[in-house]
Amino acid sequence: MKLVCTQSELNTNLSLVSRAVPSRPTHPVLANVKLEANKQTQQVSLTAFDLSLGIQTSFAAQVEESGHLTLPAKLLNDIVSRLPGGEITLDDEAGEAMCTLRSASGRYQVRGMGTEEFPELPVIENREATHLPTAALMEGLRASLFATSPDETKQVLTGVHLTVKQDSLEFAATDGHRLAVVETAHQDADNEEQEQPTRDIEEFEVTVPARALRELERMVGMRQSAESVSLYIDQGQVVFELADQRLTSRTLEGQYPNYRQLIPHQFERQVTLDRRQLLSALERIAVLTDQKNHLVKCSIDSLNEQIYLSVESQDIGSGRESMSAQISGSDIELAFNVKYLMDGLKALPASEIQMQLNAATSPVILTPLGGLKMTYLVMPVQIRG
Amino acid sequence: MKLVCTQSELNTNLSLVSRAVPSRPTHPVLANVKLEANKQTQQVSLTAFDLSLGIQTSFAAQVEESGHLTLPAKLLNDIVSRLPGGEITLDDEAGEAMCTLRSASGRYQVRGMGTEEFPELPVIENREATHLPTAALMEGLRASLFATSPDETKQVLTGVHLTVKQDSLEFAATDGHRLAVVETAHQDADNEEQEQPTRDIEEFEVTVPARALRELERMVGMRQSAESVSLYIDQGQVVFELADQRLTSRTLEGQYPNYRQLIPHQFERQVTLDRRQLLSALERIAVLTDQKNHLVKCSIDSLNEQIYLSVESQDIGSGRESMSAQISGSDIELAFNVKYLMDGLKALPASEIQMQLNAATSPVILTPLGGLKMTYLVMPVQIRG
Repeated sequence: MKLVCTQSELNTNLSLVSRAVPSRPTHPVLANVKLEANKQTQQVSLTAFDLSLGIQTSFAAQVEESGHLTLPAKLLNDIVSRLPGGEITLDDEAGEAMCTLRSASGRYQVRGMGTEEFPELPVIENREATHLPTAALMEGLRASLFATSPDETKQVLTGVHLTVKQDSLEFAATDGHRLAVVETAHQDADNEEQEQPTRDIEEFEVTVPARALRELERMVGMRQSAESVSLYIDQGQVVFELADQRLTSRTLEGQYPNYRQLIPHQFERQVTLDRRQLLSALERIAVLTDQKNHLVKCSIDSLNEQIYLSVESQDIGSGRESMSAQISGSDIELAFNVKYLMDGLKALPASEIQMQLNAATSPVILTPLGGLKMTYLVMPVQIRG
Repeated sequence: MKLVCTQSELNTNLSLVSRAVPSRPTHPVLANVKLEANKQTQQVSLTAFDLSLGIQTSFAAQVEESGHLTLPAKLLNDIVSRLPGGEITLDDEAGEAMCTLRSASGRYQVRGMGTEEFPELPVIENREATHLPTAALMEGLRASLFATSPDETKQVLTGVHLTVKQDSLEFAATDGHRLAVVETAHQDADNEEQEQPTRDIEEFEVTVPARALRELERMVGMRQSAESVSLYIDQGQVVFELADQRLTSRTLEGQYPNYRQLIPHQFERQVTLDRRQLLSALERIAVLTDQKNHLVKCSIDSLNEQIYLSVESQDIGSGRESMSAQISGSDIELAFNVKYLMDGLKALPASEIQMQLNAATSPVILTPLGGLKMTYLVMPVQIRG
């Protein structure tokens, strides 16, 4: 293998794949990144894989000799990121998987391993791709990922549940205390304009680990262009492809909760208010909530068209905030875990939001006014007497 | 007590004094910040004190009623920092050291404590102040603080040793492995121009904890103006004053090492090189150094006017960097702990530096070419065979 590339290309691509290198590899070779240089295509591809999440990326380089080897990901990243801009030469002519890296001022030799033991990334064949416009994908991820459970024992709740429908993609996430559901269009604008009869797409569902989707979010976010992402789903695996990059992930096994039945369809009360104003009032008042249950009381005063928020913390102090709102329905007092309320408000992509509810013990729904089809459900906390 | 002030003034001053609030207070009242409002002067002062470091600051406010109390520093800071800009009213009319804070949208009550048990900040009277131009003070701190020891058992080495001389101030810091010494002028330019016969200032020395000086650095750094800082030194205490702010600190007891005798005065070899170039080469090569001794070899080649840096890490790899330099004296090879070398290079305020040395086992001196009078001493590591 022998190739010449720029420091910036190698650095960007290395940091990208490094995200899939496990911190505690179960096999030594998994701590490495796989380099493959192809003289014919003048492309170099980098791959990292922790057996659950895999990332592959490729970039143009001056490949003088094809070849492949694996090199310690962290060490290589640490060196390359500190090299000055300009050309870098990589070759393994020294043999024994020893790679020599030359830049303007210095020369580094790094011991690697062969590629024999490095596992291949899963490939999904004979499956139709679903094309997701990147903007819709980013919106869906941003509005659902935060609601997943960070608790590894919660299995399917640590992932986002994707439902591919005929012409839309639904993202759902819940940790058992709150639920976020987002629906985005999945066909490219191009296709729609062509008005071709769309083939019947079978509706299917899959739960993808939040960790893989966070990497996808980062990967898509790094690209400024508005290409679409292709999604391939198979038994136990999903693959996302965008231009020269590919992200693979195992799926989470198990029955995802039937979340649609949790969302009420009729409401006795409806409140319209300013999202930022409510969020900053909650952020202030949260300072005084009890460290255990993070309880904040919320009173809806329809006569004065006001919302009152209050907290009381024994021996420490108390706080009270008020804000105007458009209210329909009768007065009510209810209590929330302030964290769940704030999380949802941060993710809702609108300046005005609607809060819909029935009783003080039934689910409360937050939705943005206009824009994205998002539903955020949070359960109020029961308050004593 | 009753006062009206702006959110931004209160917020800035609270965050400033909060730095002196201990994270594990030995007495409950020390977790609080003391507020004193003076109707006559229309000033509010805030004080925090952990019995070693004390910070006091004052600002203008509309004081309607004089008074004083102490309030939980963290809680108050958390609330005030989240309040929207604009006016804030503070009063303790509710009694029992309960303070009510009102802003445009909300009202907060915070339980405090009286000021009786809050210790007074040390005051130094009947002592002449030394006036330090802020630029010189900042240079001195920046070029010495990094070389102090973070190890609390190292006593005096956890501080910076200040020597006040007739017309200069010397900062020295060492952790036993390297030494930084900086000399800055301490008289105001104004005084010099007046050409008055300067009174004899007694030379005196004191060791001030790095923690207090870091806060001083932050405090001075927050002000854009070029006022001077007044320094008062007494047995066991130092006080720094700048405009409306005061920082007090206990001094470190014990004999500070006689560092001047460690600095050689004659050198057999002298190398002039580019500081940034050397630093970035070391940062790259440091990736490959042994995690225990961080050893990097340095060869000086006077014939080719080159410096070679190299590391070798068994089973991992090796690295080599070269750079041009102006060299006088014969060739030599020596080894360093790369961290000590990098620390000094980061702090040296010059684009070109001079490295002066005798043998491979005697102290190496780094000095900036032009600008600040700084000496950085680092001991080479002895290499076998």
